[in-house]
Amino acid sequence: MPKSIFLTPGPSELYFTVPDHIQTALRESICEISHRSKQFENVVRNTVSQLRTLLNVPEDYYVVFTGSATEIWERSIQNLAMDTTYHFVNGSFSQKFYDFSIALKRHAVKFEVPAGQGFDLENLEIPAVAELICVTENETSSGVTFPLSDIYKLREQYPDKLLIVDAVSIAPYADLDLTKVDSMFFSVQKCFGLPSGLGVWIFNEKCVQKAEALQKEGLAIGTYHSILSLIKDAKNSQTPSTPNMLGIYLLGKVAEDMNRKGVKAIRQEIDYKAALMYDVLSKNKKFELFVKEEKFRSQTVIVANLESESAPLINQIKEQGIVLGGGYGALKARQIRIANFPTHSKETFEKVADLIEKY
Amino acid sequence: MPKSIFLTPGPSELYFTVPDHIQTALRESICEISHRSKQFENVVRNTVSQLRTLLNVPEDYYVVFTGSATEIWERSIQNLAMDTTYHFVNGSFSQKFYDFSIALKRHAVKFEVPAGQGFDLENLEIPAVAELICVTENETSSGVTFPLSDIYKLREQYPDKLLIVDAVSIAPYADLDLTKVDSMFFSVQKCFGLPSGLGVWIFNEKCVQKAEALQKEGLAIGTYHSILSLIKDAKNSQTPSTPNMLGIYLLGKVAEDMNRKGVKAIRQEIDYKAALMYDVLSKNKKFELFVKEEKFRSQTVIVANLESESAPLINQIKEQGIVLGGGYGALKARQIRIANFPTHSKETFEKVADLIEKY
Repeated sequence: MPKSIFLTPGPSELYFTVPDHIQTALRESICEISHRSKQFENVVRNTVSQLRTLLNVPEDYYVVFTGSATEIWERSIQNLAMDTTYHFVNGSFSQKFYDFSIALKRHAVKFEVPAGQGFDLENLEIPAVAELICVTENETSSGVTFPLSDIYKLREQYPDKLLIVDAVSIAPYADLDLTKVDSMFFSVQKCFGLPSGLGVWIFNEKCVQKAEALQKEGLAIGTYHSILSLIKDAKNSQTPSTPNMLGIYLLGKVAEDMNRKGVKAIRQEIDYKAALMYDVLSKNKKFELFVKEEKFRSQTVIVANLESESAPLINQIKEQGIVLGGGYGALKARQIRIANFPTHSKETFEKVADLIEKY
Repeated sequence: MPKSIFLTPGPSELYFTVPDHIQTALRESICEISHRSKQFENVVRNTVSQLRTLLNVPEDYYVVFTGSATEIWERSIQNLAMDTTYHFVNGSFSQKFYDFSIALKRHAVKFEVPAGQGFDLENLEIPAVAELICVTENETSSGVTFPLSDIYKLREQYPDKLLIVDAVSIAPYADLDLTKVDSMFFSVQKCFGLPSGLGVWIFNEKCVQKAEALQKEGLAIGTYHSILSLIKDAKNSQTPSTPNMLGIYLLGKVAEDMNRKGVKAIRQEIDYKAALMYDVLSKNKKFELFVKEEKFRSQTVIVANLESESAPLINQIKEQGIVLGGGYGALKARQIRIANFPTHSKETFEKVADLIEKY
């Protein structure tokens, strides 16, 4: 049986070059060399450099690695807020970021709207005590995006607060201007199409200063993965402990492939596929787009409700060798979620669109 | 050029079956399926079950996964000590475990001896306030082992304190009786011969109760990787966040291979190779065993000083396609460290022994 193609929103289909890069990694002993060797420093240097190009990372921003984006929820609160964090919550993942702040004994304030909805920033008032504003750029559970223009508006309105963007399931699709945020992070098993077990954290000097200030105040900002420990080793293209070396290598290679193709071309393809899928879903009366307001509709995670259970459709498409995602949590049974990531081809999308049209 | 064989103490040579298992993983879409799917639950279940057999884990002990053993230093202190930890320190890694406790604002007490030495437990007095005793079973930086009989002595003398064993670079070689400790952990890039980026944490109900007690007292015990969060998902063979799925799969497969061979046979081979290497090193006057007392000599990390720089020897052996480790930290230039892990063949060891004999 040929391998299925995964259009699930993460883990998802591997980027098509990954199997070959794994073979090269094995041949070049990437998993066997010392993580303190010059050879591995070069691997780290290449990955960071490719990411800088792909995501247009300002030169004075740091790029470091953790075990997951989930870990960065924790590390960012530990390092960037002494007392109060502010969260935009509209689904399971933004809610978890908020929950982490409470578990870490911070005062967490949230602006909450139901799943499937975006945020109206008119009349927004973030409390003066909030030190860190947490934005989930693409709520993977519901397919709602936080428009870039709204992120930039937050920066204008609150220039003195730290602004951090969870870019899981959207980087590198969104052309986020990093100079307008203090930090951004993502995991690699979504748009990058890589094996899970690696998070990437990008932040500026203001974040470093905040971590230093918290440490001076006597707060525990963590150990090996505090911002201060991470940047100390990052300066030498190293990591505080033995990292997911294969993951870092593969990320560099895939970012290199993406740079070769050009991030603009990747974004255009995603726009084309999203337009196609939203069009066919909105025309078939058996479906209803979950995100009502167009400006909040994610281009990378497309969610639709069905009038009946989604399992028959999912099974029918599975027979064609394509795996769609079900709904998330309580909405599981009557929803589909379709990942629209760089590795997913136009041909696959056209095939799925055709099947949905005829359903 | 054929691939070199890595006798470095971690990362080290991949277990010889790993490349094949990676191919199977790719074919079976292990990196692409949902980490919440039945298929991946089966992967987790198999890995845990194989580890239970291999390490003779008592049925009522938990087996969970983290990003690294380094992470478990942090998580164990967060979850298992409110105020005071006690550490046996004789090298860089046991020192780091101690440092983590201080970074987490605990009172850390250490019994320190120079690198290369073991601990004399006569007249040992661990303060009454110490809640957690931290033992580094195999100090990878210096090749010193903490004898099993001494671990059991600690348990007898301090039955009410939690006893945790860092088994990095020794599990599954040591036949540690887990009923005599409360917790044990390791990373997979040492004896298991796996790509780095995964830690395994084993603990009993007493650890869970301690974490619950700390939480009740209002302490922050972490977020997704607190003991309480980890066991909640482990009960369903799941993980709190998307883990290193490939790593968990490969660990299960390699543990399965090891179980098929039999852990006794693996231990006997390691004993044979250690005897061979220690013998040849002690007979050549250009070398001096770094660990003077035989009972403290590690079977899995063999360390020797040279009368001159170690680089010429390391280079000479490298020309034969075998990579030895240098010394650690300050001792780098005049030491060799040789990993003696399950994947390293007798033939390789005989070849290295021969080269050292003639050096």
